[in-house]
Amino acid sequence: MMRPAFTLTILGLGGSVGTPPEGIAAEVVVVGGFDELDSLGATGVAGKIVLYDVPFTNYGETVAFRAAGPSRAGALGAVAALVRAVGPPGLRLPHTGALRYADGAPQIPAAAVSTEDADRLQRMQDRGTPTRVRLKMEAKFLPDADSFNVVGEIRGREKPDEVVVIGGHFDSWDVGTGSTDDGGGCVVTWEALRLMKKLGLRPRRTVRVVLWTNEENGGRGGLAYRDRYASELASHVMMMESDSGVFRPTGFGFTGTDAGRAKVKDIATLLRGIQADRISAAGDGADIGPSVEAGKMPSMSLDVDGNYFLLHHTPADTVDKIDPMDMSRASAAIAVMTYVIADMPDRLR
Amino acid sequence: MMRPAFTLTILGLGGSVGTPPEGIAAEVVVVGGFDELDSLGATGVAGKIVLYDVPFTNYGETVAFRAAGPSRAGALGAVAALVRAVGPPGLRLPHTGALRYADGAPQIPAAAVSTEDADRLQRMQDRGTPTRVRLKMEAKFLPDADSFNVVGEIRGREKPDEVVVIGGHFDSWDVGTGSTDDGGGCVVTWEALRLMKKLGLRPRRTVRVVLWTNEENGGRGGLAYRDRYASELASHVMMMESDSGVFRPTGFGFTGTDAGRAKVKDIATLLRGIQADRISAAGDGADIGPSVEAGKMPSMSLDVDGNYFLLHHTPADTVDKIDPMDMSRASAAIAVMTYVIADMPDRLR
Repeated sequence: MMRPAFTLTILGLGGSVGTPPEGIAAEVVVVGGFDELDSLGATGVAGKIVLYDVPFTNYGETVAFRAAGPSRAGALGAVAALVRAVGPPGLRLPHTGALRYADGAPQIPAAAVSTEDADRLQRMQDRGTPTRVRLKMEAKFLPDADSFNVVGEIRGREKPDEVVVIGGHFDSWDVGTGSTDDGGGCVVTWEALRLMKKLGLRPRRTVRVVLWTNEENGGRGGLAYRDRYASELASHVMMMESDSGVFRPTGFGFTGTDAGRAKVKDIATLLRGIQADRISAAGDGADIGPSVEAGKMPSMSLDVDGNYFLLHHTPADTVDKIDPMDMSRASAAIAVMTYVIADMPDRLR
Repeated sequence: MMRPAFTLTILGLGGSVGTPPEGIAAEVVVVGGFDELDSLGATGVAGKIVLYDVPFTNYGETVAFRAAGPSRAGALGAVAALVRAVGPPGLRLPHTGALRYADGAPQIPAAAVSTEDADRLQRMQDRGTPTRVRLKMEAKFLPDADSFNVVGEIRGREKPDEVVVIGGHFDSWDVGTGSTDDGGGCVVTWEALRLMKKLGLRPRRTVRVVLWTNEENGGRGGLAYRDRYASELASHVMMMESDSGVFRPTGFGFTGTDAGRAKVKDIATLLRGIQADRISAAGDGADIGPSVEAGKMPSMSLDVDGNYFLLHHTPADTVDKIDPMDMSRASAAIAVMTYVIADMPDRLR
């Protein structure tokens, strides 16, 4: 075996199969998206390792190559797939995350590479240098195991069946310690409830904190919540998720009626003192999504000012990136917003 | 073997011995410096892995733990040494670099750990949690092999024996591609000479560009230059090194006489247009050091505004960190300063 000219910085993708112990060695073909892949077709791709080198724009747009790219390359005969890290350039930092093998498509090994390495392979291709990569990954998919959502609540003093839900997900990719995605979200929602309890505040309606399990691998905790509480979703008043990291809070996203938005904007004026009073266009979250859709209720999310997509799914997602003062501000903002929604005479619609 | 609770992000140190294939497993003891190590003594250190967790202040101060720490721990019976990355906090980014085993001290394996991991091990110790680390490193030291300094020059038109030297070192740690340490320094000094040639400028004295070999492992290229040119160092006018990365140039460091400094400040006014006209207190470099000491001549270095110590010795030292405009400005600044020193009627003293 030839001595490699350089080593790529990679992280296997969640859900990927692994390689044989000796790895998979093949020529790399770099593509700028699905159109380019399809125009190369099986002739240009079969037997090769496909690298999707698509610079990060926003998560929704770029994550498609991580999620669906391996299957689309595999269907054309590629032997493995690499994906440019779905995030802004870091310091040779790859971003892992889940892929989804399409039914019937060959399951080929897939890994994220750092933006620096993707750029380099692109430059080599542009220059006409054929590049061979040997990919070695020990990935395997274990059978499902039981895990649980963690639920706690302050029962409402007048309308205990009307429920305001706040929470985050307490699983994370194991490459870091999951402080930003989504340890912080769990802590600040839990802390918001604790603040109410500590202050002896018991609102009219129930406030429930939910720490969802297994968001990263298909949102299983969020789906289980929807199913477990199916008959009660009609009396869920609002659900809020914090899953964009805990940096300086700027306010909340809100999805719902115009009247609901006006009410939430009104409540947010209480948060001017900590500059967390902006209400932005959309309030959503991977875990609350299924229940919100089923229950047709308003939904909210904590808005923050920070570089979430640089850190999440990386080895750098560690606790030192979180400022305790930001965390206190976020807890306070969530406590105020949630308490008022749970306690005001009229139900938020 | 127990499943590890987490994996440290490490880089073996240059010159370190490796571990047996199964690794070295031992309890970690975190120390804040040599005083703490010595006060623990053999009783507190023997059989353990010592972690030097000393936050980065400046390179000279902090690098002592990387260079001498392994031997001092080994002398007290430690079985391996870890060193907090010598650099500002990055994104789980360890910094490699050379260690120097002391004569007679046991040669124990040694690695750098990221600041995040050092912080974590420190927190665990502060909390009273005993932490066991298994260190696996394949490091080995190969026999010396030949390598060469690269030398090119424009011979002076009137005083060819008086020489102005500029350069950088063209070896690097192999974890990145060495763009900042010190590919950029080589390119901008070489480019300064090329600019003179392209413009048809032949100064009174010789301008020589030297790309030194093997700086990282003991400055062997710099020592070889001193020895090879020993008899000619008296007619070396000035030596300049660029080894602080190529970011926006701010001017030059200068070490020499007051008269020399006044002259260099005067020349630097030509660089006001690109804001590269500051002359700072000291101009030095690892490669020019031995020759400057032997030849008792003025020395200079390129000053830049950038986060050199974040990038150097890391996997993130890649070409994308360099701004081509900064590189052009640096080449221009070096060309102007060097040309005037080489061409002015009186020799710089």
